[in-house]
Amino acid sequence: MPELRKDPIIGRWVIISTDRSKRPADFSREPVTMKGGFCPFCPGNESKTPPEVLAYRPNGAARDTDGWTVRVVPNKFPALGIEGGLNRQAEGMFDKMNGIGAHEVIIETPQHEATLGTLPEKRIEDVLWAFRDRIVDLKKDRRFKYILIFKNHGPLAGATLEHAHAQLIALPIVPKYVIEELEGSKQYYIYKERCVFCDILRQETESGVRVVGENEGFLTLAPYAPRFPFETWIIPKRHESAFENSSSQVYEGLAKALKNLLMRADKVLDNPAYNLVIHTAPVQQAAMDHYHWHVEFMPRLTKIAGFEWGTGFYQNPTPPEEAAKYLREAKIETAQPEMAAKS
Amino acid sequence: MPELRKDPIIGRWVIISTDRSKRPADFSREPVTMKGGFCPFCPGNESKTPPEVLAYRPNGAARDTDGWTVRVVPNKFPALGIEGGLNRQAEGMFDKMNGIGAHEVIIETPQHEATLGTLPEKRIEDVLWAFRDRIVDLKKDRRFKYILIFKNHGPLAGATLEHAHAQLIALPIVPKYVIEELEGSKQYYIYKERCVFCDILRQETESGVRVVGENEGFLTLAPYAPRFPFETWIIPKRHESAFENSSSQVYEGLAKALKNLLMRADKVLDNPAYNLVIHTAPVQQAAMDHYHWHVEFMPRLTKIAGFEWGTGFYQNPTPPEEAAKYLREAKIETAQPEMAAKS
Repeated sequence: MPELRKDPIIGRWVIISTDRSKRPADFSREPVTMKGGFCPFCPGNESKTPPEVLAYRPNGAARDTDGWTVRVVPNKFPALGIEGGLNRQAEGMFDKMNGIGAHEVIIETPQHEATLGTLPEKRIEDVLWAFRDRIVDLKKDRRFKYILIFKNHGPLAGATLEHAHAQLIALPIVPKYVIEELEGSKQYYIYKERCVFCDILRQETESGVRVVGENEGFLTLAPYAPRFPFETWIIPKRHESAFENSSSQVYEGLAKALKNLLMRADKVLDNPAYNLVIHTAPVQQAAMDHYHWHVEFMPRLTKIAGFEWGTGFYQNPTPPEEAAKYLREAKIETAQPEMAAKS
Repeated sequence: MPELRKDPIIGRWVIISTDRSKRPADFSREPVTMKGGFCPFCPGNESKTPPEVLAYRPNGAARDTDGWTVRVVPNKFPALGIEGGLNRQAEGMFDKMNGIGAHEVIIETPQHEATLGTLPEKRIEDVLWAFRDRIVDLKKDRRFKYILIFKNHGPLAGATLEHAHAQLIALPIVPKYVIEELEGSKQYYIYKERCVFCDILRQETESGVRVVGENEGFLTLAPYAPRFPFETWIIPKRHESAFENSSSQVYEGLAKALKNLLMRADKVLDNPAYNLVIHTAPVQQAAMDHYHWHVEFMPRLTKIAGFEWGTGFYQNPTPPEEAAKYLREAKIETAQPEMAAKS
């Protein structure tokens, strides 16, 4: 069972592996090579993953067989363990608890060569529904306080398998960065009696300089103070604190916005590695007027980031106004027919 | 002039380049190659850097000529500009100010092939004195609220030049991570009326499981909840909030502790890339009972870190007890004679 430990100075919780801990020689200097070889996420290899917890099968085939469009399985090497109690306890002045949680993989497509950005909008929508369905199911477990959805695309972004997939981690604590957003947006709300994200939507729509794209439900923009070059957020226009409480039109709109952004980024940045994360409200809380879920997209363009870890202080070499202009003006096929991306 | 911009949700300041902003094609995918070629930090090439702001010349040679042991020059491509006022202002709902600050390079040795860890202890002590002397000089400028000393060693840690060097950035704001340490340690002090770092020193010395090494003035340890495998802190035993206010014995002891740790890390982790940062109190504040300066050492062993940027949530595959044991038990020549490292 992994351990969750709390830093006694700043209060940040960290997962510490205990069972399969890495020794010095395990940290390979070699670049990850992901091409070729056996892929456990490809159709026909369903028995090579843990049994599925969710799959969409338009033709109604049997569990853990071929015929799915999206498939969700537990991570074979989970960061957290699903069984047991939290057992919060002290270790002298320190605090820890059992590393209880769920760690799942959302296989986004049966096609090995596809990426989320090249999938048809309808297929991206299916992936978003899988995110929602898993959150709705897992939040019934009251041990879980937060459910993270994220995606590492490309070795530079930490992906170790090539086949397009996202990940879900259900946690007994709320991650630090989400707490900061919750607290910061609450302070803003106390002062202004308005949601800071709603205010950002208004100001950015009016000025337009940091806007990358827009559809009926979403604004895609470069944030005013981004940490990373070409960092981009997708914000729903309608105020809602929890991703999973959205109407079906919202997932349709987000699929469109996501595909549009990923195509633009692929064009402008030459198929970059990227991380994508959904920031949403903690799962055991009521709807919040001050918090507003959104998607953050962070292409991995620079390695110069070690220092930033030590200080929380970032230098961004590309002003967001310029990044937004490049992405906004990229020539992409906006009305790509669904068939085009099929293998 | 670069801009400092504040994130409106969580209040984090970011440096945004404006003059030489990077376009998409400027983000190279190629690994940094640093071997061979011209080195602006080598003796004889003093005219290729901006004029020095400090140098130690045992034989009293002229400025910007050969004969130095440590040399400090302004960064040729500074992240911040030194001239002008802060000019804090709003941009609608957003906040910004001019990117005023100093950005200097501390060239740690004239020997191109040396590393900080292979230098004799006395030479490392000189480097620490250079850090101190520059902080003492720069803090007279009341525009600067914080002075960061850090080191990127190796391309994986963000270094772009091979010749051993550290960096200094003087800032008109306090970086977020330092604010968190200041606030966290203050809360602890209010509750316990003791410094949290002093308490950590006591508990870790007693238990010993996370101790890497110890000398008269310093304890070197793996922290209880480290974000990264083999992350290690060096903490002065005597309470002091500001690095630059230490006695000369302290720099002597830190030089010993640093060399010892770097030799152990080089042995155990095969000369890893690393980041090193000095966390110290903001420069315009009086001595603090609740804050305690220290050094954080973070080897760059894994690329799997993109996700962590999006959430502030870390998975560490090596328990600190095991990391400390590897480092503690490494066989190194502890009484290396000063001559041995000379070229």
